[in-house]
Amino acid sequence: MQNNSRLTELRHEPPARRRAIAAESFGLETGALDAFSADHGLTVEQADQMVENVVGIFGVPIGLATNFIINGADIVVPMATEEPSVVAAASNAARIARQTGGFHTSSSSPIMQAQIQIVDVSDPDAARLRVLEARDELMDMGNRQDPMLVSLGGGMREIIARVVQTQVGPHVVVHLVVDVLDAMGANTVNTMAEALAPRISQLARGRALLRILTNKADLRFARAWATFDATALGGAQVVTDMVAAAALAHADPYRAATHNKGIMNGITAVALATGNDTRAIEAGAHSHAVGSDGRYTSLSHFEADADGNLTASLELPMAVGTVGGATMAHPAAQAALRLMGVRGAAELGEIIVAVGLAQNVAALRALATEGIQRGHMALHVRKTLSTADQEK
Amino acid sequence: MQNNSRLTELRHEPPARRRAIAAESFGLETGALDAFSADHGLTVEQADQMVENVVGIFGVPIGLATNFIINGADIVVPMATEEPSVVAAASNAARIARQTGGFHTSSSSPIMQAQIQIVDVSDPDAARLRVLEARDELMDMGNRQDPMLVSLGGGMREIIARVVQTQVGPHVVVHLVVDVLDAMGANTVNTMAEALAPRISQLARGRALLRILTNKADLRFARAWATFDATALGGAQVVTDMVAAAALAHADPYRAATHNKGIMNGITAVALATGNDTRAIEAGAHSHAVGSDGRYTSLSHFEADADGNLTASLELPMAVGTVGGATMAHPAAQAALRLMGVRGAAELGEIIVAVGLAQNVAALRALATEGIQRGHMALHVRKTLSTADQEK
Repeated sequence: MQNNSRLTELRHEPPARRRAIAAESFGLETGALDAFSADHGLTVEQADQMVENVVGIFGVPIGLATNFIINGADIVVPMATEEPSVVAAASNAARIARQTGGFHTSSSSPIMQAQIQIVDVSDPDAARLRVLEARDELMDMGNRQDPMLVSLGGGMREIIARVVQTQVGPHVVVHLVVDVLDAMGANTVNTMAEALAPRISQLARGRALLRILTNKADLRFARAWATFDATALGGAQVVTDMVAAAALAHADPYRAATHNKGIMNGITAVALATGNDTRAIEAGAHSHAVGSDGRYTSLSHFEADADGNLTASLELPMAVGTVGGATMAHPAAQAALRLMGVRGAAELGEIIVAVGLAQNVAALRALATEGIQRGHMALHVRKTLSTADQEK
Repeated sequence: MQNNSRLTELRHEPPARRRAIAAESFGLETGALDAFSADHGLTVEQADQMVENVVGIFGVPIGLATNFIINGADIVVPMATEEPSVVAAASNAARIARQTGGFHTSSSSPIMQAQIQIVDVSDPDAARLRVLEARDELMDMGNRQDPMLVSLGGGMREIIARVVQTQVGPHVVVHLVVDVLDAMGANTVNTMAEALAPRISQLARGRALLRILTNKADLRFARAWATFDATALGGAQVVTDMVAAAALAHADPYRAATHNKGIMNGITAVALATGNDTRAIEAGAHSHAVGSDGRYTSLSHFEADADGNLTASLELPMAVGTVGGATMAHPAAQAALRLMGVRGAAELGEIIVAVGLAQNVAALRALATEGIQRGHMALHVRKTLSTADQEK
């Protein structure tokens, strides 16, 4: 057991041998990653229990991103994606970052929010205050919906009430602020919202309409940052150019959309491989990418540090879970979590953001140097992990 | 061959039989949908040719959404998703819409844009004009990169040049506006951008940095609209409430994120099942969801018509292809296109938007009536297509 994420031998091996090498390298039993194989993955019968009218399975390639060090630990990251060069690009940036200690991460508490929309309210401002005056009662009522969550240390954290002016009049919108621990949290907060809606309607003297989570999970952030050695990137001019490339993404929505899409190439691939809801994460990320000036902008920040190296950081809402949903039901998602040694949702979210940042750095480096198409072609010709990075 | 998308018998059959029924119903040979089965889908060997360091396959359930009529034609839609109730919800809304003629669609020409960023320009406004003065030369140069595209009727359509103020100074940003026909278009426009960058740098008397498409594909729209009978939805109050629910999504970014996430539940599932790049479509949709007032807002519009029925419409950037990329390489993606009888990218994009709209209507109906959680539980208990709708 080497517990080292470089695994340079992987590229020369066939997929089955790669599974064995990765399992052995991280102390797992032989066969621990068999759920990635065609014969031992999700069956059509299992799929038939997950969604409706099932006719089969759509297979998405899983590749292993190598070289990652995250908070001091070597991690190999399974990525599910159909897009060429994404796995190679993440591995490439992670190889450069490991020279300077790899990625560092942090995250907020796993807070999700549900919204309860109250319509037909005659005095919305007064209604809002009446709801807030019942804060403690509502918090208790919410917590009673999920005693298990509360016993584990999660549960209701706050009640927020707003008046929103809409095209059909003012609505009172009440937010339930809930610590969901290691779940994605949608079911938890939706159940609470439906349970509290009658009482909140009564308090507001109105009628409850929508009762559902918001995917703009902007109280649940994960962050990653890393330093990239200037020489390893290609020299001081490459650092300057990557900062200039990031500046355009900051200023121009047309560039920001593709800059962020490159980030999501990494994030969505790990989210999918772990059975998480990629639409939720995409909605959280992009809805957060609107700056205070109302311009759609980039999610990451690049700058040159005092030594001339590149420091890059990324923060975004990260509603992922390691319990519940497809994560539990899907054998390959379970194998993915085991390979990464993930112990909870916060750790998973931070790995995901680190991979998104690696993808972003790799893409901007390629774009600021050889260009995407040339990198692509080199990759396809050489079929090795030593080359191209990408975003498209 | 019934060529009818209702297929009410599907829900009682096992997956293999569902494949046979769907194939037969749409005039395909027996076995046409075998690529959806565990034994005949994407192999690990094929996956190993698509991305790097492949260790296997992540299987995503494929369910068939029934009941769709789009522009007068019955269509059964394969959706790849891990999320319960999504397939049922789309089918449910499509069942209501078919009473009033189903979905109608249109789309713009398939225009993609690449950006070329020019830095180190001493007089950006003058540089911009020099680039535009060479418009015809640059158009010819772009077209010479892809004679096949031009011979089929596509190619360069315009050159746009902008001056963007960034944190590191003003940059000249040149857009290549290209009709990419039935491709997603990333490779096409990236190749053109890399080829034209040296000449544009020379004209601008600066240096080319980024040369890549924008995923904010706001010259490539697909649209869908439909009418939903008030009685079938549950009555006049349900229509009023769905309009009020949509009004909150218009006004409030927290609600808009989840409203749009529900739309993307449908859109991403069809995009994935046809081998398209879901990150590109998510980035295009969400970056477009910023209103002129700088607020993140909803992508769809709901209103009551003169008869009291609900009319709903959806428009978003739709960068999908039916040639190139994983769509060609993936056997299940090919089977999905055959089942829908899709002849080109515009038709596929319009089907995708119709499914997104169906998903949105189903979610808002569920939210405005029984609530998501109750719908969910009913679905899981009854396991039929007659119940719950969802968005989370």
